[in-house]
Parts: sequence; C-alpha cells; structure tokens
Amino acid sequence: MESPTAILLLSCPDAKGIVASISNFIFQHNGNILHSAQHTAESESILFMRIEWDLDSFMIPREEIRNAFSPLAKKFKMKWNIHFSDYIPKVAIFVSKQIYCFYDLILRHQMVEFKMETPLVISNHLDLKPMAEQFGLTYLHYPITPDNKAQQEEKEIERLKKYNIDLIVLARYMQVLSPRFVNEYPNRIINIHHSFLPAFAGGKPYDQAYQRGVKIIGATSHYVTETLDDGPIIAQDVIKITHRDSVEDMKLKGKDLERIVLAEAVRLHLDNKILVCGSKTIVFD
Amino acid sequence: MESPTAILLLSCPDAKGIVASISNFIFQHNGNILHSAQHTAESESILFMRIEWDLDSFMIPREEIRNAFSPLAKKFKMKWNIHFSDYIPKVAIFVSKQIYCFYDLILRHQMVEFKMETPLVISNHLDLKPMAEQFGLTYLHYPITPDNKAQQEEKEIERLKKYNIDLIVLARYMQVLSPRFVNEYPNRIINIHHSFLPAFAGGKPYDQAYQRGVKIIGATSHYVTETLDDGPIIAQDVIKITHRDSVEDMKLKGKDLERIVLAEAVRLHLDNKILVCGSKTIVFD
Amino acid sequence: MESPTAILLLSCPDAKGIVASISNFIFQHNGNILHSAQHTAESESILFMRIEWDLDSFMIPREEIRNAFSPLAKKFKMKWNIHFSDYIPKVAIFVSKQIYCFYDLILRHQMVEFKMETPLVISNHLDLKPMAEQFGLTYLHYPITPDNKAQQEEKEIERLKKYNIDLIVLARYMQVLSPRFVNEYPNRIINIHHSFLPAFAGGKPYDQAYQRGVKIIGATSHYVTETLDDGPIIAQDVIKITHRDSVEDMKLKGKDLERIVLAEAVRLHLDNKILVCGSKTIVFD
Amino acid sequence: MESPTAILLLSCPDAKGIVASISNFIFQHNGNILHSAQHTAESESILFMRIEWDLDSFMIPREEIRNAFSPLAKKFKMKWNIHFSDYIPKVAIFVSKQIYCFYDLILRHQMVEFKMETPLVISNHLDLKPMAEQFGLTYLHYPITPDNKAQQEEKEIERLKKYNIDLIVLARYMQVLSPRFVNEYPNRIINIHHSFLPAFAGGKPYDQAYQRGVKIIGATSHYVTETLDDGPIIAQDVIKITHRDSVEDMKLKGKDLERIVLAEAVRLHLDNKILVCGSKTIVFD
Repeated sequence: MESPTAILLLSCPDAKGIVASISNFIFQHNGNILHSAQHTAESESILFMRIEWDLDSFMIPREEIRNAFSPLAKKFKMKWNIHFSDYIPKVAIFVSKQIYCFYDLILRHQMVEFKMETPLVISNHLDLKPMAEQFGLTYLHYPITPDNKAQQEEKEIERLKKYNIDLIVLARYMQVLSPRFVNEYPNRIINIHHSFLPAFAGGKPYDQAYQRGVKIIGATSHYVTETLDDGPIIAQDVIKITHRDSVEDMKLKGKDLERIVLAEAVRLHLDNKILVCGSKTIVFD
Repeated sequence: MESPTAILLLSCPDAKGIVASISNFIFQHNGNILHSAQHTAESESILFMRIEWDLDSFMIPREEIRNAFSPLAKKFKMKWNIHFSDYIPKVAIFVSKQIYCFYDLILRHQMVEFKMETPLVISNHLDLKPMAEQFGLTYLHYPITPDNKAQQEEKEIERLKKYNIDLIVLARYMQVLSPRFVNEYPNRIINIHHSFLPAFAGGKPYDQAYQRGVKIIGATSHYVTETLDDGPIIAQDVIKITHRDSVEDMKLKGKDLERIVLAEAVRLHLDNKILVCGSKTIVFD
Repeated sequence: MESPTAILLLSCPDAKGIVASISNFIFQHNGNILHSAQHTAESESILFMRIEWDLDSFMIPREEIRNAFSPLAKKFKMKWNIHFSDYIPKVAIFVSKQIYCFYDLILRHQMVEFKMETPLVISNHLDLKPMAEQFGLTYLHYPITPDNKAQQEEKEIERLKKYNIDLIVLARYMQVLSPRFVNEYPNRIINIHHSFLPAFAGGKPYDQAYQRGVKIIGATSHYVTETLDDGPIIAQDVIKITHRDSVEDMKLKGKDLERIVLAEAVRLHLDNKILVCGSKTIVFD
Repeated sequence: MESPTAILLLSCPDAKGIVASISNFIFQHNGNILHSAQHTAESESILFMRIEWDLDSFMIPREEIRNAFSPLAKKFKMKWNIHFSDYIPKVAIFVSKQIYCFYDLILRHQMVEFKMETPLVISNHLDLKPMAEQFGLTYLHYPITPDNKAQQEEKEIERLKKYNIDLIVLARYMQVLSPRFVNEYPNRIINIHHSFLPAFAGGKPYDQAYQRGVKIIGATSHYVTETLDDGPIIAQDVIKITHRDSVEDMKLKGKDLERIVLAEAVRLHLDNKILVCGSKTIVFD
C-alpha cells in the first residue's frame, strides 16, 4: 500500500520566495516532497504550482492542514486547494443512448484504473439502464423536455448533492446543461466533444469534417462552462483519415479517440493534476 | 534509371466497366500497370481512380495518348488528366520575409527529393534575395501596395506564363492573391497555413491557439481558392503542446510542422497523386 | 442494407494484362467494381491486388465463382482467395487472466464494430468465465501444464474445428502455441504483443522498455507463426512516455494501445483487407 | 532582452528537506524561481530536479554560486551542475557525406533556433566542405582509415579542446568513435540513429525494417557511449509506413524524422534540460 499524500494546487501572482515558503512549510512539519512542478507564465506573471508530499510522518493532522496553510496562501494571494490521495471522489456519469464512452469508463473503473467510487449513472433515457444494472450501478432516469428541463435539473442537482458528488462526467450526454446547473459544479463537469475544438464545435462534427475534407479528425475533453463547447480544454487527440473514410468510418475511428481522450481527462482530474486558470487548464502531467 | 510511366487521374459517375475499359486500353496497347487505385464514394456515386503504367513498350506514342484515350473518357463522362513521370514540372515559390519554408523547399530540391526544375522565386520583399541567389535561383521582386496590387499581379502572371510555370508554392507569402490571379492557376497554387484548419483560420493562428488553450497545434497545406484559408486540404499534421509553451514556443514547434506539411503537399502534387473533387482532395498515397 | 460483395485478394509474379483480365472477368459477368487497389513491389516484381465488386447483378452464382475464376488464376500463377462480405466469420478468443483486451473485443462485438459471430472463448484459466457468461458467451476451460499441453491443444483443435472457427484471436493469452497448433491455422491466429516489435520481444516488454529508457512505447498485432513474436506484423501504434512514467504507468498507457492495435488487426482481417506475403503483410486500408 | 538565469540540474538520494533547502538558498540570496520540476523515482528512491532562477537581483556573483551551493550539494550527496542561460555553448558538428542533418542544423542555427556559437565542422570527407564554407563555417578534414584512426582522433580531440567545444553533434557521421574519444566527452556527444532503438541497431536499419515488415519507422537521438547505439536515449519519434513504401521511400520519410529528432535533442541539451542518470535520461521538457 502506498502511503497517503497531500497535493497542493495553486496559482498566484509571481513573487520571490513562494517556492521556498511552501517547501519550508512542508519540511518544517516533517513532510517529504515527492513531486513538485512550478511554472511561471512570463507573459502574464502568474505562477502555477503543484506539489505533493507524503503524509506519513507529516506533523499537522490532515484536517488542520488547510488552516495551517491559510496564512501563507493569503500572503501570496493564492488561489489554491489541497487534496488528499486517499480520498476517493464520488462521480456521476451522465449518459443518453450512446454506450461506448460509458462502457469504457465502467471498464476502467472495474479494472481500477480510476481512483473513484462506484459511480452513479444519470440519464435522460432508459436505454443504458440494463447495462448499468448489470454492473451493479444505480441508474437514475430524468427524461428531459423543453418544458420540464429546469425542474428536472433541480431534481438532478438535489440528488447529486445528496450523493456528495465531486465530479460529473458527460459520457456523450445529449443535453445542454443550463447555466444554473453548470454554476453548481464549476470546473467539475467534464464533457467529451467529438472534434478537435475549436474546429467543428456544435452538432454533427464528423459530418462537418467530412464536408470540409480534413485529413485528420480529433476529440476534445473539456470542462463545461455556460457557453457550449467552449470550456477549458483538458486533453485532445487526433487520428489521420483519408478520402476513403466515409462519415461512418470517421465515427468508428472517432469512438476510440473519444474514449481515450475522455478517460485521460477523468484520470487527470481524479489525480488532481489540473489547475484551471481563466479559460485554460494547466495540466501537470 | 527508372523507365517513364504514364499516370491517369480521373473522376466520373460510377458505372460498370470503367476499370475493365481502362485496363483493357492499357493492356491492348502493351502497357504494364504498375499501380492502380480506385475508390467509389458510395454516398455520392462518384468513382475516383489513379492508374500508372510503364511507357517502355507502350504502343501509343505519348503525344497521341490523350487523343487515343479521349473516346473512353467521353463515354464515361470523366474529368481526367494524363501526366508523364519524366516531365519535370516548373515551379515558382512565392515568399515574403520568413525564411524557413523557403529554405526547406530549396534544401529538398538540392537533395533531389522533389521532381521539379530549379524554381523561380517571386517576392514582395527583398529580404530573401541573397539566400535565393546563393543557390543560383532567379529572384523576382514585386513589391505590393494596396494601390499597385492589381498591376503587380498582372506582371507576375505574365512572368509565370513566360516561364511556363506549372505549380506555385506560397512558402509563407504574406499577401492574399486576388481571384483574378487564383483563377489563372486553379488547383495549382499550394499554400501552407499554420493551424489545423478550419480551426484558427486568418491571421495569428498561434496567438489564437494560445488564447484558446488548445493542447495540440497543427499545420495545413491546401490549394488556394478565392476564399482565404478555405481551399481543398492536401495534408495536415499536428504536434502536442503543453501549458509551458508560450506563443514563441508554439511558433518554434510549428515551424517544423509547416515545413513538413508543405513539403508533403508539394511532393504529392509533383508526383501526380492528388485529384481535386469540389472542395476536397482525393490523395492517392 | 448494403448488398453483398465479393472480395478477391491475390499476389502473383508481375506480368502484363493482369488487371485487365481480372476487371474483364468481373465486367463481362456484369459485376460493378467498388474498390480496387493494386501495387507492384518493384524490387521483387510481385503484384498484390485487392478488388471488391457488387454481387447484386453478378451473373455467376457465388458458389461457382471460384471455379470460374480458377483458369485466370492458374494462367498468372496467382496465390488467391475470394471472400464474400455477407459471410460472418466464426471467431474464437483465447484468454488467460488479463481482462482488458478481451473486454474490449466483446464491447466492439456488442456495438457491431466487427463482422463476426458471437465468439467462442477458450482459456487456460477460469478467471474470465463469469465475464464471458455475463455476455452469453460459451467459455471452454483447458488448463495447460507442461505435461498435458499437447493433449489439451488437440482437444482445443477438435473443438475449434467442430465450431468451424475461421479466426483465433489471442487476447493476452499467456501460452505459447505449439507448431502443430499454429500450422492448423496459418495466418488465422492474431496475437497482440505489448511492445513495438522487433524491440522488446519476449517477456516483460514494459520492464525492458523501462530499463532501456525509451521515450516511446508501442504495441504490435501480428499473425502467429512457429517463432515467438516473429510473425507477419499487421498493425502497430505507439505513445510517448516520459521519465515520470513508472513501469506501472507504462502498463496503463500501454493497455489502450494494445486494445486499439489488436482491434485494428481483427477488423482488417474480418474485412479481408490483409494479404500475407512471406514474413510480411500487405494491408489494403 | 531576457535577463540571465541560473539553472541547477541535480540528482541525489531522496530525503526530506531537499526542495526546501534549495529554494531557501535561492530565496535568501534574493533569487526569483522561474521554473522548477522535481520528480522522485519511487522504485529507486532517487530525486531528480531542475530549478531555474533569475540572476538579475541575485546577491551571489555568478562565479561564486558554485562554491556557495557546494555545502548543500555535499550534504545531500548530489550529482549536480549549474548552468547560466547567457553562456553560449560551443558546438562541433561531425559529418561524413550525407547532407540533410547537417544542413538542418545550420538552418536552425541561422534562424537562431539554437543557443550555440557558430559551429565548427569536422569530417572524414570533403564532400560537405563547400556547403560549410558557403555559410562561413570552419571545416576541418580528418580522413579516417583503420590504420590512422587512433592518431586522427587524437588530433580531433586536441582541436576540440583548443576550441573549447562543449557539445559534439554527430550529424550522420559514419565512423564509430573509440572509447578513448567518447570518454573525453561523456554525455556531451549526441548521435542520431535512423531507427526506433533498440529495434534495428547497427547498420542499414531501413533495410532491416523493410525486411521485417514493420508498419512504423522511427529515429532516435542519444548520447554516445562506448557501446554502439546503446547510449542514453534523449528523443524518439516515429512515422507510419505502408507496404507501398520501398526502402527508398522509407529513407525519404525517415530523413524528416531524423532531422527533427536530432534537432530536438540538441535543443534540449543546449537549454540544459537533460539529466543523465545511469543508462537513461531525465528530460525536463
């Protein structure tokens, strides 16, 4: 068993002494730093940092670490958060009718690739219910119509809160979430879009790609914001295609991309490797 | 020495007997087919084909092949062209101030990677003249202002025609060609755009990419049409970037992409491997 | 519903008239060629060809096509085979304890990505039996020891023949098949090896890769021959790694590669796009 | 103008307080850390670190920094080195007859992609002399025979020392350097090998790759050690090929790979981003 670690993610205006202050804080309380990465975006004079240390002999009890660190954070005007590696996040997966991204996430969960609790499944359709139940997952059905959307979202939010959900994954969920919903989970809703954003945002990206005659197609995972397909990008990947590929062929090839790119984003989030800064992500891979 | 070959590129409405008719035409005149590829886009019922055969013992003299093939082409309503592998195309390279794509093309020409005659260089600036002359290339200078653009383009066209130019390569040429110019060389002007089109068309694509926070940047080579950055795409490639990459870093990484993607398009064109169909290319690689 | 097609795969010494003869054969019996690709390896003077035509109005009944084509094949000394697109191959998947490649194949089968009948599962262990049965698959258990290996393989072969198995997929099957077994299914057993062959053949390729400090890892799918990890390569892919990746990280990243590369090989085989020539494959993608 | 920075590269047995001690050292002397990355290889309990800080208001004069840091280094048993960003390394490029890697490096030098002084060129042939002189480079000719190799290498070493060469780049230099030579420049000789090592080490890797029928070819840049093609790998990249690619096609495609992979290694070295640990590199990209 690996011993638990603490992970500090932060951004702040660049200044002297930040790395020294943080590493002293850890060292003086007998922590051993395992990984640290710090980067200063020179054009903007912002410092980004991720630092992870062993909690084994760390002298501050974990429930007091946040308070203990707070003065330092204040001094340097940090936006920050501390996570613990042995906390198992609670995840809700939103699905519609498409199975492959959902199935892929479940498979990875079964193979313990992800550090997450048995996920909750929420859908506007019943199609994937048997599949979810086959794996012993709770499946909640909230059909959405233009008329009931606001109400249904309220019920969903209520449930998500009841389950203490930390992360929502839209595994090809075919509904646009309202700003009200999105703002409940800022930078905690991950979507997969089946194009290389910003190319081919919106509907039917493979048809768009076919019409344009591109030689490469892509997939993009991103945090959901109020604007469709416009949130901070977490991961992207691409695959070459040729004139022989029909739209159907592109969909088939794209499925593998989408699964991998979504899984990568989920893993990075669960491993606390992502810092969101404005409309962009800093990914400490 | 390889013996010369004939290369037939065609598209036509799908019908029975096309491949048989063409291969009979070649066989009955004692030609040996070296490569053939045929593809039918089922959604559109269009047949695309590239077929290459040895001219060594072919019984029709090459200057008569077009006439001899013409009835078949008419019968099947083909759009077609025949090329000969030992014809060395005449190329003009348009440049402005950026050196790297130009230099790369010259290097490849020197290393005989391309089947092209010593190219003509045309520029709206004088910056690269010494470089061109160092390699013994003719460098023609046509400074462009909003006022003289139409006139200068006429002069350029006149020169291009005098030199019997077959292909124009825009190696980071920082002027938009007028429709009048473009229509003189349909599907014979290749441009390199430093983004993964259709994302980040227009100016400063790396700045746009930086602002959007993409995780991958790309380059696109395409034929030039009247609409900026919208012509048939020939080749694309991408490279991963991270949050640590500044706009300058992206430009540096992008240079290699641009050089490779432009060179690939030029090579495919010179090897007669591209068929343009509407707004798309069929690339017989 | 797409109408059925015939697919002819062949190799033979290069000669004049081969393409013409074959396309005439198809045209004269009222077939419509949908795709054809022909390539001559000039260094070896061997012609490779794949040609696919519509059976809809083809005048030769399918059970007589082989006989009808036979004289042409003889004339040009072809190695050849004809497949029909509506024949659904019977597949056996061999597994041991590792689940991910197996699971991936089953998922793709469920999503109708593959043209194959509900596969038979054969294993030397019982670990994956519940999973197989959850999907309604027949699971046959043949434990292997050094002493009983020859006998167990005989029983397996007997069963495979009884089920008329066309293709065997080794989805991380941790036993080396004997020459006797391999020779029963020449070029019909596909294996996945978790390295970029020929680098790191044999056991523990990720440990080997870690020791060597490579910056890219790969996966290779190939037909199984008598020599371990040495058969004709069908598909390969790679992924970049860094010094931060432990052997465990490499295994995790490699899993996605292995799944995709194995699936690609299976799909190419099921779509009759592979021609084996000596120790190499010709893949008509 | 960017202000100069100091870059500390180090490895040492993992222990508590290393990051804190180093960042305190920098902070207490009024340095501003711009980038830092630290990684602990858990399996081996070794800590690797690269840390870069602004020298602008740093209170220790640069010629005294090494001495000042020395006690800390001793305390933690570090292998370490400090570099300064405004030091321009002196590079020698070794070539034989092949031009493309050499030409690529010169182009990049001209475009100020590399932080290096106008390089010295050393060759066992005269072929590239005109090219070198065209760019104003000093070209030294040391023909090598089995008989004179040891003597010629001595002369080369003498010259390299006279020119205070920091880095040697073998740009397709077709001679194996003796252990005596290699040991003069440990981890300071970069070679490009035209395969994805460890596959196809030794001569004629493209022919080997063609024979084996691989679907991907690669290139590898590495530090030179006494054992051929076995030194610590710095960078690798690959490109897909098909059965249509002859050995000549592979060479052509490989050229682009080789140029890019060699340039990447040279840039990483010149930017002080590589730490060699045993037979592997740690690359702080």
